[in-house]
Amino acid sequence: MNTNGIAATAERKDLLSNAQAENEAARTLSKGGPDYGVTFPLWRAAAGASWHDYTRHPFVEGLGDGTLPRKAFMRYLVQDYLFLVQFSRAWALAVTKAETLDEMRACAKTVHALLDKELHLHVAICAAEGIPEAELFSTREAPQNIAYTRYVLDAGHSGDFLDLIAALTPCVLGYGEIGARLASRGNETGYADWIATYAASGYQDTCRAVGSLIDSAVAYRLGSEPQESPRWRRLCNRFETATRLEVDFWEMGLSG
Amino acid sequence: MNTNGIAATAERKDLLSNAQAENEAARTLSKGGPDYGVTFPLWRAAAGASWHDYTRHPFVEGLGDGTLPRKAFMRYLVQDYLFLVQFSRAWALAVTKAETLDEMRACAKTVHALLDKELHLHVAICAAEGIPEAELFSTREAPQNIAYTRYVLDAGHSGDFLDLIAALTPCVLGYGEIGARLASRGNETGYADWIATYAASGYQDTCRAVGSLIDSAVAYRLGSEPQESPRWRRLCNRFETATRLEVDFWEMGLSG
Amino acid sequence: MNTNGIAATAERKDLLSNAQAENEAARTLSKGGPDYGVTFPLWRAAAGASWHDYTRHPFVEGLGDGTLPRKAFMRYLVQDYLFLVQFSRAWALAVTKAETLDEMRACAKTVHALLDKELHLHVAICAAEGIPEAELFSTREAPQNIAYTRYVLDAGHSGDFLDLIAALTPCVLGYGEIGARLASRGNETGYADWIATYAASGYQDTCRAVGSLIDSAVAYRLGSEPQESPRWRRLCNRFETATRLEVDFWEMGLSG
Amino acid sequence: MNTNGIAATAERKDLLSNAQAENEAARTLSKGGPDYGVTFPLWRAAAGASWHDYTRHPFVEGLGDGTLPRKAFMRYLVQDYLFLVQFSRAWALAVTKAETLDEMRACAKTVHALLDKELHLHVAICAAEGIPEAELFSTREAPQNIAYTRYVLDAGHSGDFLDLIAALTPCVLGYGEIGARLASRGNETGYADWIATYAASGYQDTCRAVGSLIDSAVAYRLGSEPQESPRWRRLCNRFETATRLEVDFWEMGLSG
Repeated sequence: MNTNGIAATAERKDLLSNAQAENEAARTLSKGGPDYGVTFPLWRAAAGASWHDYTRHPFVEGLGDGTLPRKAFMRYLVQDYLFLVQFSRAWALAVTKAETLDEMRACAKTVHALLDKELHLHVAICAAEGIPEAELFSTREAPQNIAYTRYVLDAGHSGDFLDLIAALTPCVLGYGEIGARLASRGNETGYADWIATYAASGYQDTCRAVGSLIDSAVAYRLGSEPQESPRWRRLCNRFETATRLEVDFWEMGLSG
Repeated sequence: MNTNGIAATAERKDLLSNAQAENEAARTLSKGGPDYGVTFPLWRAAAGASWHDYTRHPFVEGLGDGTLPRKAFMRYLVQDYLFLVQFSRAWALAVTKAETLDEMRACAKTVHALLDKELHLHVAICAAEGIPEAELFSTREAPQNIAYTRYVLDAGHSGDFLDLIAALTPCVLGYGEIGARLASRGNETGYADWIATYAASGYQDTCRAVGSLIDSAVAYRLGSEPQESPRWRRLCNRFETATRLEVDFWEMGLSG
Repeated sequence: MNTNGIAATAERKDLLSNAQAENEAARTLSKGGPDYGVTFPLWRAAAGASWHDYTRHPFVEGLGDGTLPRKAFMRYLVQDYLFLVQFSRAWALAVTKAETLDEMRACAKTVHALLDKELHLHVAICAAEGIPEAELFSTREAPQNIAYTRYVLDAGHSGDFLDLIAALTPCVLGYGEIGARLASRGNETGYADWIATYAASGYQDTCRAVGSLIDSAVAYRLGSEPQESPRWRRLCNRFETATRLEVDFWEMGLSG
Repeated sequence: MNTNGIAATAERKDLLSNAQAENEAARTLSKGGPDYGVTFPLWRAAAGASWHDYTRHPFVEGLGDGTLPRKAFMRYLVQDYLFLVQFSRAWALAVTKAETLDEMRACAKTVHALLDKELHLHVAICAAEGIPEAELFSTREAPQNIAYTRYVLDAGHSGDFLDLIAALTPCVLGYGEIGARLASRGNETGYADWIATYAASGYQDTCRAVGSLIDSAVAYRLGSEPQESPRWRRLCNRFETATRLEVDFWEMGLSG
């Protein structure tokens, strides 16, 4: 999900104009944060400074005001292509660990979106920069990429659906939050399209759907007072670990 | 895949007429067997009598000439609904074990088809028989169902993509072969719609695509002379074990 | 664990005499059932008639009074060898899903016991009956064996440590309960050694250790009132499904 | 396996004297490299400069001549404790993916050694430095630790036994090679005990056993000319990726 940054370039017709995205973002943020359900704000709060480090990272700020070097962006984007391949595997793993048909379908839908939409967008933007897909695919994964993606997959293999979802959340919903916030500033920069993608109603709808999936999954397993469960703190830890690995991923982009 | 038997009832417009299916089937079989690639005929031959026991089972013959008791069909169909849920998980597991994007996409496509098409069809036909989906979902899995589905899933967890694919194949391609053969007889019975579904070009296309996926996957891992690999015999064993578990699945239907 | 039936034959020195086992069993049962912790009695009660069907199965009664045909016993024993191989895999999977070092060590210890003790015993008893290990290992798994072992493995892959443990419990603790009960009768039959093995203090200690592992694992994940968790009923279902698959396993023996 | 560095301190009686280790090491290296079977040298050669970067890393050289700052060593050692927990899980996963009893037993033996020996040694040495086990266990995993361990686990989940073994090899055999080489220099430094542990015949025996396991596993799956298999290059890539993650692990120590 890290990803569809390039949609605006590749398939502009599917996107809101940047102005529309800006309005959308303003509504999203009007109550102090995006509305992605009841669990997400709790996990985000529990992640403390790590969440801020992730969503207000210099890489993000550089996207927002356009000062991010193109080289850093491209380094990020190529790694993000490889990230998406692994992230698709993680959402497919979620299908195998779901306990209801609704959970299975929600996760399968995400796999489909990642493999059949987002990846094509990365390919398109990279092609425009002169990087053919064969080169993308054969690029060596950065250690920060390995750490993040394999941590998420292992969360699924070692635990249950909820452990996996907690590790998947920071990427999906964090990008929604970042997109909405940056779009509300309305800067016209070289990265406005990237921002518009995540601020767009399509992506924000996905975020709300994932937020709803999380809430249902939590209720199904932990009941009506999930914070009373002994698992709660460990789920918060998973969320925070994935959040810190997002920070490292931005760092990797800057070091490029 | 076991499944879309009911398509003709639920969505007749998507189907070939039975007459068309019959012609299609005649073409499919004109060379002595359906053309699902080069690996499938080798695995089928290695399964020996088990393949015959599966594809010529009395349950199948009863579908073909219309003598299968409705009660047996319905017992099968309800279990097949539960089978499909697990089979979707197995194809999602294949996404996580694929090594190329083409493999990932082919498997994700199958997950999508199972969850968003076939399951709805089972629900429709069962609803017509007065069985609401809630009852379907809460039905206890028959031991034969558990044995088959969990064997396939374990093939994936214990081995690699190829082990999983070898265990997934008998169901997908066997139904294609059965559908084509029964349709070529052209009997007008109460199960003609079930037969037409698997004989239809849509399903036969799926079979050819899966056959092609198998051939590619084998070449990617075992090279140009796969029969020389020490794994070949073990892959044949997986295929045959899954085939025998198909036989047990038909038996379960008859015992209903 | 299904297994060490033959210990008395193979390594008599490690075993209590049958008379000692009988006394031990009487103590174990003095309070109405073996004392394997607080969770096990709840799961057993929730399994209702299935638990009775398993622990009072005609196969078991035939072991108790010596009327079980030798052929049935041997068919069971050969399949049980294959069962143990898969059961070792399931306990190894538990190591990968444990969340504390104590859990990891308890499960690793069981893997070690299964692979390095029980399997040798099966080999010994079968050798005495003229069945070499190569024949054992190449025996085809019965469908009831596949159903049970792969169900347990899948419980681990699809869920968390607790899902796996719930599916592993009926075999381990049920054999302890059966052994204790049959030993308390004190019959001197051809199967007295099998009974003594499970009634012996060594096996009963294992049962108490596993019971304690279950209690700790439940508390670690569901807290002090696990029955209030929405997962409770589903864990009971896993336990009961595994119990019913034990019944089928005895049936397989009888059908031999 | 990263690990038993501290054995000499904790259980000196189990160890060779450093002088003995030195002699042992000289023999080991007399033919130009340790003799850990036929596959390992091929994988090592294919890893090219990465293998040199790992086994001749400044951290390693600092261990060899005693110039490694104690702070760096302790940072490494604490992370290595956490590494071992995950590495135990990876060897347990190998038990579930083994296809022969010999493979299962060899892997289970390693799990046992890691959980019941090495971990205690880390606890002992850290206790001597005033770090209680509770602090060890609650230490946050460094990203380099997450990357390496979860990569290995994912190699197992996404592939077969061979994929997992290829990712497990650099740690086990690389430490053997490093220990043997450093011991042959015979320096008496503050890290002589660490070196002696890996140079000792006990550890070298383990390396030869693992080397033999690898050779058998390769032959069982790829046949007598494994380099002709299309999988060969990808297995070499797994080995090399794990090797590079070892380099990052040393870097993490130095950055402490």
